[in-house]
Amino acid sequence: MQIRPAAEADTAQILAIVAPVLAAGETYATARDLDDAAVLAYWLSPSHEVFVAEENGVILGTYYLMANRQGGGSHVANAGYMTAPDAQGRGVARAMCQHSLNRAAERGFRAMQFNNVISSNTRAVALWQSFGFDIVGTLPKAFNHPVHGYVDAYVMFKTF
Amino acid sequence: MQIRPAAEADTAQILAIVAPVLAAGETYATARDLDDAAVLAYWLSPSHEVFVAEENGVILGTYYLMANRQGGGSHVANAGYMTAPDAQGRGVARAMCQHSLNRAAERGFRAMQFNNVISSNTRAVALWQSFGFDIVGTLPKAFNHPVHGYVDAYVMFKTF
Repeated sequence: MQIRPAAEADTAQILAIVAPVLAAGETYATARDLDDAAVLAYWLSPSHEVFVAEENGVILGTYYLMANRQGGGSHVANAGYMTAPDAQGRGVARAMCQHSLNRAAERGFRAMQFNNVISSNTRAVALWQSFGFDIVGTLPKAFNHPVHGYVDAYVMFKTF
Repeated sequence: MQIRPAAEADTAQILAIVAPVLAAGETYATARDLDDAAVLAYWLSPSHEVFVAEENGVILGTYYLMANRQGGGSHVANAGYMTAPDAQGRGVARAMCQHSLNRAAERGFRAMQFNNVISSNTRAVALWQSFGFDIVGTLPKAFNHPVHGYVDAYVMFKTF
């Protein structure tokens, strides 16, 4: 598995990973009814630096890196990660997180912040904690989960 | 003083309030070098419902109301407020905050979240607390203040 910048030719495979996750609406607080163009406009936004985890031409996962805010907040990075269902449990998310932290430091960011980690996404919370992210805030019932109803969301933060 | 939806004719006065605040870069984590068109594109974004506090044709302040997130997060509102320098200390921000909470409830939001309240903005922090907002998160040194250097930012939250 190699992690590299996304290329034009990856678009269909990226869409195949991202669209179902946004439609399910369990982990990202984005509209659940985006069409393919809107999904790609979101994930491949000009503000996002997009990477893919690839093995033998198959995209196993994708992540974006961006400045969380501008001006006085531009030293804090933000990122989002998605792993293909078939590639779960193989350390793809872990590899992408490590890659994103390296890349963020390389770009001069001093910290990374996740603004809205859904508390029911326990695997993600544990993974980010294993990288040294702290839960620095709890947003009470800030996410209406399609299965679990209103659940807390966390703000997670790691200083480099 | 009345608070009412912003109208086309308010644009110049809104710009005169918002542009210097963004250029100073002490309270909003936006780019500090936005030109007038970019300032207006930001404040009058299609996702923002914009109001003004007006007295005898003079705009004393302006605020926007929006959904903080989409999908599972769309029940939480977000807002930003600015008061004209000449109108400070007259309760304009307090009146706008009360108006925004009423309007948010009217629109069906169940809570309001401020994502990035700069800790050095002590007057704003105290004002939001007086309305029942809690500091639910502290983002360590997440804002590079032009005068104070790296300072914490707060996530503030109020459930209706």
